[in-house]
Amino acid sequence: MGDVAEIGGRRADRARQVADLLRGEIVQGRFGGGRLPREAVLAREFGASRNTVREALRLLRDEGLVERCPGVGTTISGEKYPHGLHRLLGLAETLHEHGEVTNQVRTMTLMEPPSAVRQRLGLGPGEQVVYLERLRRLNGLPLSLDLTYLVREVGEPLFDADLERNDIFVLLERIAGQPLGVAELTLEAVNADPHTASVLDAPRGAALLMVERLTHLSDGRPVDLEFVRFRGDRLTMRGHLRRATTQDPGTEKE
Amino acid sequence: MGDVAEIGGRRADRARQVADLLRGEIVQGRFGGGRLPREAVLAREFGASRNTVREALRLLRDEGLVERCPGVGTTISGEKYPHGLHRLLGLAETLHEHGEVTNQVRTMTLMEPPSAVRQRLGLGPGEQVVYLERLRRLNGLPLSLDLTYLVREVGEPLFDADLERNDIFVLLERIAGQPLGVAELTLEAVNADPHTASVLDAPRGAALLMVERLTHLSDGRPVDLEFVRFRGDRLTMRGHLRRATTQDPGTEKE
Repeated sequence: MGDVAEIGGRRADRARQVADLLRGEIVQGRFGGGRLPREAVLAREFGASRNTVREALRLLRDEGLVERCPGVGTTISGEKYPHGLHRLLGLAETLHEHGEVTNQVRTMTLMEPPSAVRQRLGLGPGEQVVYLERLRRLNGLPLSLDLTYLVREVGEPLFDADLERNDIFVLLERIAGQPLGVAELTLEAVNADPHTASVLDAPRGAALLMVERLTHLSDGRPVDLEFVRFRGDRLTMRGHLRRATTQDPGTEKE
Repeated sequence: MGDVAEIGGRRADRARQVADLLRGEIVQGRFGGGRLPREAVLAREFGASRNTVREALRLLRDEGLVERCPGVGTTISGEKYPHGLHRLLGLAETLHEHGEVTNQVRTMTLMEPPSAVRQRLGLGPGEQVVYLERLRRLNGLPLSLDLTYLVREVGEPLFDADLERNDIFVLLERIAGQPLGVAELTLEAVNADPHTASVLDAPRGAALLMVERLTHLSDGRPVDLEFVRFRGDRLTMRGHLRRATTQDPGTEKE
């Protein structure tokens, strides 16, 4: 059966398989936010050894998804919320079933933007933008840190808006008098630097889902450039892809 | 100007802003894969202090995106490849401009699937699946570790296929005699466990972009359930979202 390293490697491979399947079931609520079945039950279900199941549960514990307590078993410790990838939605809009989103404004200022911002927002030299930084919480727990650059015309009225309890998207549509249109989106996984980790109350180095998003009004003008760091242990993105090329005009730039 | 901790916090906030803008420019190829401008130039461009720019460059170095060398400056060390989120594509299809994708098959076996797999693939008790595990490389460097469960009918012919050099998607369409249809997708950011990190040749705890994807044939049958771990420092996902509800039938389950 090969040497010890190989057997260890095999168990790690098997544990990863089990962890992936359990992760999906936890996130989809199969265990109702409560307790996982006992190791022996899981071992039977996955046709795996108790040791493999134990290692899989350790992987999920290290992801912050479950807690393990001797005598008590494995309980689900963190809820992971689904953020729709099928439509452009603000956080409060997309998570309204899951609780209350509140936003703590860390910075809000009118500024001369760096050229990288100016280019993305299609601004001329000397044009100012509103820079906004928010720590967003769901049911009181930090979920994301959002850095937002807004074209002055739609950004300046936000100084008088209730940013604590409203998505920017909803406010922007009210201010612009037209719906938002298309957003260009980039998703990445990055490790939290120490300062970001402490702001998000996450472990140093925690995996973050990083979203860069340039949002246009429905008339095509880019108005909102955002850099959002979601805590990886609290959020999943869900959507659909089609194999056939869509006729969606939003994809023509690709 | 407040106490030291506050000043340190402010600089960290500013460094994050600069890092986010630079990251976007690096990934979009503004510097052509070469060298970044000198700190003084960047400081002027971002209206930031040299210390802030230095901290921003440290953040990008810790993400594995740049290297810093005294006397040489800051060079781009890792290329980050865009994976389209606008259409369902295999890795070799989506990255064909960026180089050669090769697949190392780590495991391939016919197995009795756990109930979590059976349910997702719509299988009855006792039906077997093909389990496939691949380490995927782009130009020789590890990019992703893919765990794949395939319905037996389309999976078994893969034992005779050239899996080293072909995307599963392309092979499945050939075998099934019909195109793929819709895939349900979940994206998460997770930290690499030690074993996965060593397989992907990434640092322990490295942020991974984790994709769970259930792919259907165009006739609607689910055939392919995948768990893909992309190295976060080597891949971005790019797409578009629309504010208006689309008429896409793929979104009706949401």
